[in-house]
Amino acid sequence: MQKLIRQQSHKAGLPPGSLVSMGHAAARPIRISVIDYDQDTYTETDLSGVSDCGLYKESPTTSWINITGVHDADLIKSVGECFDLHALTLEDIMNTDHRPKVEDFGRYIFITLKMLYMSGSGQNILFEQVSLILGQGYVISFQEAEGDVFQPVRDRIQRASGRLRQRGAGYLAYALVDAVVDQYFSILESLGEEVEDLEESVVTDSERVNTKQIYGIKREVTLLRRSVWPLREMVSTLEKIETDLIDVSTRVFIRDLYDHSLAILDSIDTFRDMAGNILDVHLTNVNNRMNQVMKLLTIIATIFIPLTFIAGIYGMNFDYMPELKWHYSYFVVWGIMLILALAMVKYFQKKKWL
Amino acid sequence: MQKLIRQQSHKAGLPPGSLVSMGHAAARPIRISVIDYDQDTYTETDLSGVSDCGLYKESPTTSWINITGVHDADLIKSVGECFDLHALTLEDIMNTDHRPKVEDFGRYIFITLKMLYMSGSGQNILFEQVSLILGQGYVISFQEAEGDVFQPVRDRIQRASGRLRQRGAGYLAYALVDAVVDQYFSILESLGEEVEDLEESVVTDSERVNTKQIYGIKREVTLLRRSVWPLREMVSTLEKIETDLIDVSTRVFIRDLYDHSLAILDSIDTFRDMAGNILDVHLTNVNNRMNQVMKLLTIIATIFIPLTFIAGIYGMNFDYMPELKWHYSYFVVWGIMLILALAMVKYFQKKKWL
Amino acid sequence: MQKLIRQQSHKAGLPPGSLVSMGHAAARPIRISVIDYDQDTYTETDLSGVSDCGLYKESPTTSWINITGVHDADLIKSVGECFDLHALTLEDIMNTDHRPKVEDFGRYIFITLKMLYMSGSGQNILFEQVSLILGQGYVISFQEAEGDVFQPVRDRIQRASGRLRQRGAGYLAYALVDAVVDQYFSILESLGEEVEDLEESVVTDSERVNTKQIYGIKREVTLLRRSVWPLREMVSTLEKIETDLIDVSTRVFIRDLYDHSLAILDSIDTFRDMAGNILDVHLTNVNNRMNQVMKLLTIIATIFIPLTFIAGIYGMNFDYMPELKWHYSYFVVWGIMLILALAMVKYFQKKKWL
Amino acid sequence: MQKLIRQQSHKAGLPPGSLVSMGHAAARPIRISVIDYDQDTYTETDLSGVSDCGLYKESPTTSWINITGVHDADLIKSVGECFDLHALTLEDIMNTDHRPKVEDFGRYIFITLKMLYMSGSGQNILFEQVSLILGQGYVISFQEAEGDVFQPVRDRIQRASGRLRQRGAGYLAYALVDAVVDQYFSILESLGEEVEDLEESVVTDSERVNTKQIYGIKREVTLLRRSVWPLREMVSTLEKIETDLIDVSTRVFIRDLYDHSLAILDSIDTFRDMAGNILDVHLTNVNNRMNQVMKLLTIIATIFIPLTFIAGIYGMNFDYMPELKWHYSYFVVWGIMLILALAMVKYFQKKKWL
Amino acid sequence: MQKLIRQQSHKAGLPPGSLVSMGHAAARPIRISVIDYDQDTYTETDLSGVSDCGLYKESPTTSWINITGVHDADLIKSVGECFDLHALTLEDIMNTDHRPKVEDFGRYIFITLKMLYMSGSGQNILFEQVSLILGQGYVISFQEAEGDVFQPVRDRIQRASGRLRQRGAGYLAYALVDAVVDQYFSILESLGEEVEDLEESVVTDSERVNTKQIYGIKREVTLLRRSVWPLREMVSTLEKIETDLIDVSTRVFIRDLYDHSLAILDSIDTFRDMAGNILDVHLTNVNNRMNQVMKLLTIIATIFIPLTFIAGIYGMNFDYMPELKWHYSYFVVWGIMLILALAMVKYFQKKKWL
Repeated sequence: MQKLIRQQSHKAGLPPGSLVSMGHAAARPIRISVIDYDQDTYTETDLSGVSDCGLYKESPTTSWINITGVHDADLIKSVGECFDLHALTLEDIMNTDHRPKVEDFGRYIFITLKMLYMSGSGQNILFEQVSLILGQGYVISFQEAEGDVFQPVRDRIQRASGRLRQRGAGYLAYALVDAVVDQYFSILESLGEEVEDLEESVVTDSERVNTKQIYGIKREVTLLRRSVWPLREMVSTLEKIETDLIDVSTRVFIRDLYDHSLAILDSIDTFRDMAGNILDVHLTNVNNRMNQVMKLLTIIATIFIPLTFIAGIYGMNFDYMPELKWHYSYFVVWGIMLILALAMVKYFQKKKWL
Repeated sequence: MQKLIRQQSHKAGLPPGSLVSMGHAAARPIRISVIDYDQDTYTETDLSGVSDCGLYKESPTTSWINITGVHDADLIKSVGECFDLHALTLEDIMNTDHRPKVEDFGRYIFITLKMLYMSGSGQNILFEQVSLILGQGYVISFQEAEGDVFQPVRDRIQRASGRLRQRGAGYLAYALVDAVVDQYFSILESLGEEVEDLEESVVTDSERVNTKQIYGIKREVTLLRRSVWPLREMVSTLEKIETDLIDVSTRVFIRDLYDHSLAILDSIDTFRDMAGNILDVHLTNVNNRMNQVMKLLTIIATIFIPLTFIAGIYGMNFDYMPELKWHYSYFVVWGIMLILALAMVKYFQKKKWL
Repeated sequence: MQKLIRQQSHKAGLPPGSLVSMGHAAARPIRISVIDYDQDTYTETDLSGVSDCGLYKESPTTSWINITGVHDADLIKSVGECFDLHALTLEDIMNTDHRPKVEDFGRYIFITLKMLYMSGSGQNILFEQVSLILGQGYVISFQEAEGDVFQPVRDRIQRASGRLRQRGAGYLAYALVDAVVDQYFSILESLGEEVEDLEESVVTDSERVNTKQIYGIKREVTLLRRSVWPLREMVSTLEKIETDLIDVSTRVFIRDLYDHSLAILDSIDTFRDMAGNILDVHLTNVNNRMNQVMKLLTIIATIFIPLTFIAGIYGMNFDYMPELKWHYSYFVVWGIMLILALAMVKYFQKKKWL
Repeated sequence: MQKLIRQQSHKAGLPPGSLVSMGHAAARPIRISVIDYDQDTYTETDLSGVSDCGLYKESPTTSWINITGVHDADLIKSVGECFDLHALTLEDIMNTDHRPKVEDFGRYIFITLKMLYMSGSGQNILFEQVSLILGQGYVISFQEAEGDVFQPVRDRIQRASGRLRQRGAGYLAYALVDAVVDQYFSILESLGEEVEDLEESVVTDSERVNTKQIYGIKREVTLLRRSVWPLREMVSTLEKIETDLIDVSTRVFIRDLYDHSLAILDSIDTFRDMAGNILDVHLTNVNNRMNQVMKLLTIIATIFIPLTFIAGIYGMNFDYMPELKWHYSYFVVWGIMLILALAMVKYFQKKKWL
Repeated sequence: MQKLIRQQSHKAGLPPGSLVSMGHAAARPIRISVIDYDQDTYTETDLSGVSDCGLYKESPTTSWINITGVHDADLIKSVGECFDLHALTLEDIMNTDHRPKVEDFGRYIFITLKMLYMSGSGQNILFEQVSLILGQGYVISFQEAEGDVFQPVRDRIQRASGRLRQRGAGYLAYALVDAVVDQYFSILESLGEEVEDLEESVVTDSERVNTKQIYGIKREVTLLRRSVWPLREMVSTLEKIETDLIDVSTRVFIRDLYDHSLAILDSIDTFRDMAGNILDVHLTNVNNRMNQVMKLLTIIATIFIPLTFIAGIYGMNFDYMPELKWHYSYFVVWGIMLILALAMVKYFQKKKWL
């Protein structure tokens, strides 16, 4: 099961802005790749260190520096010094438990958001933090681990004709956020299919529906909602931020992104309502089956208890019991029992219990 | 059952504004019809392509271009070029999963909303997207499939005396949105009848009420609410938008439309509350019936178990059981049993269980 | 049962502002009465038509034209022409399903609200629409059917000394709305008594409380709340509207009316909470009774099943069963049974089941 | 049980501002006492009528006129004339069902709020209305019945050194409202103790917890919340009101009062949550006890029903039943029965039912 | 169990600003320590009284006066006089039940908030109040009892190189609030672990999960939420307050603190949802086990009741019962019984009850 709160208490007492890695494992290699382009040129390089970062900061071209792995405090610190980042920004980059937010530091805008993907087994939704620094002429992106979510953006930059090559760093930052948010839809789809399958099963009153499965989906939807909710706020802030780093024509696209985040929330809310509904139907089904069990018990007991009583009567050993002597008593008693049983069956049929 | 989330993940990675059809089937023919009118003239034409569109854009008359079928990316692109529409507008037109919204692009206003209609079997509510472009002197409407929802508007334009002929494109756009929203009332009516029938049945404690039926209505109301909720917001935005494309006298009508959308939401909320209430009454009914079953079992068992015990006593084979010898024992035992049974019946009557 | 949604779909397709009667029955006679007064004069007339309406429009005195019956589209249209009313106002007057609202048309203010009264049988709350036009020097009121709700206002106008005679049309309009809202309190009172009776019964754990009765009240409260909620909004709008038609000294009274509508909502919310509470207590009662039934069954069965088993043992027909021969076996068995039964009774008493 | 809605319908039809007493009983005597003070002087008088009121209105000292009993319409009217109060203010003073509010009439500020106290038996929370008129240099307070809530304020005025003597009427009005709100804390405390006792009992799974008791507290909390909620709003309005009657240094104290009202609401919400929690625990307890009952029934029945069947078998009277003849059959059957019973007891122990 | 409402009623009647101790026990010693520093100097002293306080008020260095123990009204009063604090501030410092808030008194800013820590047994969350006075060049902190929450701040001040030494009192106040809020994370962590353990247990359907444990956590989360909720508001006020006492560069840190408080609320909400979910799963588990019990009863009873009836039939003592004479009747009856039992087992298997 996924951890909800990662250890943060070992940070208590440190001054704010202290860089303490919270990533899963520090053993993973760090990779720094730079794409530098303008409308006419395109270069792609892998850096071994951050010493050359300043180069990209000043260049008139748009530079995208992508750093995979945020657990190396020294590296993050070097990047921070090179690009003159605030200590709190660096702390937020390394604290991978942050809620999505946008913060305007004047010289640059800091964006942090969650990337979602399914675990290998397709069972759990995993979260990973992506942070972006949008400065004048450059974008720095930080990922927890290597992923291919930015590959499409890379491909689009390579194509000389695309919008990305014609526009600056602001549009690049938008494109990266958009790439992350686009991932959400595939999660929603797989979750949606799961919910619909479950609904199908539950409506056909299938025995194979498991309460735990339903609660599992409810849990997933709850966690997802809590992660996505601040996204809407974040995109809204990004749209309204007063900055020169994002030009007007890019804002139309951010408005579109805002619509997407609303649509994502709508879907999650629909899933939540449906999961609640499915649970209610399922519990009603379980209850109905229980009621059938109880009805059966009642019917059997109600029919046989009086008959057994009659048999008990004529099993008594009194010396003087006149019926015992009569020749056809036995058959008469059988007759009475049959009539009684039939009468009760009729009664149950009238009551619609059979 | 209706799909909740249409596949959107195959769009992930494409640049924003990419035109990918999401319509049901691309095989349906596309139809482009144009109505061009002013106070004195009226012409109706079917276009085979969009090459002549520019003609209508510049004309001093009001032009209504209605395009049925939004799955042909090339066509949509041509329309976009002709009328100078933003790439995101075109994407929104083709993405038939959009929430209702109004967006002001200066030169034109983009409106998208949902049309509701009952499925052929009258069982399901189906959604279809309608998009409108309101420009200077023209309105372009996009429908997913041929429908007759705009027919009354067409008829009213033909009549030379109507308000529609005297007013411009802004009023035409309003009339089209109004025609779509008017449809909602018929959906509400049929849903309302269903809810009231169910309430009637449930109050008369009818056995034929089905839990699944109730959950089905709850589901429908939930989906409906989620679709209609953004409509209110959309109409409100439309009322307040600062634009020359809608003149002041038309705004009074949009305010009226806003009242309608509030009334629709009110009705849906009433249905939701009633469906919840119906479910509660139904579950109480089910529970009551179960309780009756349990009471019957208890009564039968409680009366006969002691009697059977007495019969068991005198069925014992001890050599010395003085009662067995007495002549009237058998009748005395019968008497005791009758008295015991009657006493218990009395007790149950006092407890109001019979 | 009361209809929730009156048929409105036959209006779909008609241009906005179309006058289609939605009143219950068009057969009821229409009555137009006019009261014309200023501080010194008072005249009361019944009009047969609306041809003389213009007269009252221009007169320096305050005129109150009360029209009972809104199902005659021609009449409404004539009134509209005479007083220069907007087509949408006329439509709203005839559409008796409107939510309460205030609309400022500059020349006049349009107010529509619901009048509540108990049905003859005192079982149902009925709604009727009242619309008011407040113009310069005149008020036109529209009622669905003849009622005596405005009688007190009429009486107060007749008295030369009252505030009503000294103030203008704005205060008259306020007085009419106030008269309608005052009616709400009597509805609340009778509903409150019903709720408190029910609460009394349920707390005394009376068997005569009926689940359906409780759900009935919940339904009534829900409907009432949905009708009254927009009233608060309406009065608030009326208070804040920027217009010369209502003078400052009248606004204090409207603020008072606003307090009343808040108080009404408070009461309804209290009733809603109480109805919910009553239902919970009732269901707990029902459950408790069921538990008692089950306990009885358990006690009877648990006591007699082992005893019956013992009796069964000695009813077996084995040739060699030494106990059967002993002389006092029968009494010993009786003794054992009694001890067993008493032990179990003790056990149940210790467990507090008896 | 406490009435929720006092009769108000007999007011319907009267003009607004009509003075109709709503107090419990008109027979209680009315008392008018005046305290007149400035930094150096202090006089306390009881008035027999309101004829001398004007005196206090104009005096440069601060006058506090306290009127106990609001059921005498004539008296209230005289006060109103003397201090030039609005008709609606007078109506609000006599209508003891008003929600707490602050209203600024320019010349004076009208404050009405609820005083809470426990009924003699300590069982019910009772509400009483307190109204204040804050004018230039005077405060008039209206109470429904004699109470000692204002005594501490009186004592503090007597002490020449207190803040009250140095400040004007605005601070006096604050001190009176503060005295009323301070009372709330003692109600909260006694309610809090009740809630905590109940929680203690319910957690120890005590049988003596009564469902009705829990619902009673829920009802009390609901009523309390509905009464206190408008208090917060009222104090907030009082803080922000633009008036010369309350000077800046007094506003700090009103802000403090606002904090108090927030704290009161916090406590009530905590009680509400706890009462809900207690109810849930209690219902779980009840359910658990029921489950134990059912388990016992099941265990007894499941053990003895098969044994009784075996006994029944050998009670049959067939001529040829070989086992009956064998010498040790009886003991063998006993053995089988014992083994069967032990096996079932083991099974139940494994299932953790015993 | 933790008290919810501490006694406050003995304060009723006292003038606002009265200093009455509400601390747990007045016997604890009071400690006053002063740290005085600027970029170059650092002194740490323990004061025996407050007579020298004025010294620190005027000094150009930053002074941090930490007072442990708030139950000595005289001491608090002396501090108040020395630093010219408002009477209400002093009252709030001593009233340890205050909700977190920030209040701007111009000369100084008053901050009060809750410190959380686990009780020694790790079972309960305890609350303690911390109040801060931020003035020009000094910070006064008030704690209820000695704790080590401020130790890290002390250590950071000692280090000459830290940010704390370079910045003024505003940053110090922020650092103290931050230290308190950092504590929350460790509480959240231990609560989170408890919740996750419980979830783990409940999902594996373990018998050892206790309903009371779940309700206990729900109660804790509810109390925690109610304490933390005003924190968010408080930090938000602190961020927006217009004052010279906090400089712009410190505000960035307060914004970061605001993000932290949002994250804390997010976690608490997640815990709340999870606790609700856990409870639902647990109750479903309990219900499922009950259903299994009922099924077993039904199966046993349904199989044996008819068989016992058959045995009863042939235990009757009629003179003429032909089957009794037939030689193989006994075995035939056994056969019939076996077939019947097997048929019923099959039926139950088909119904999936076995």
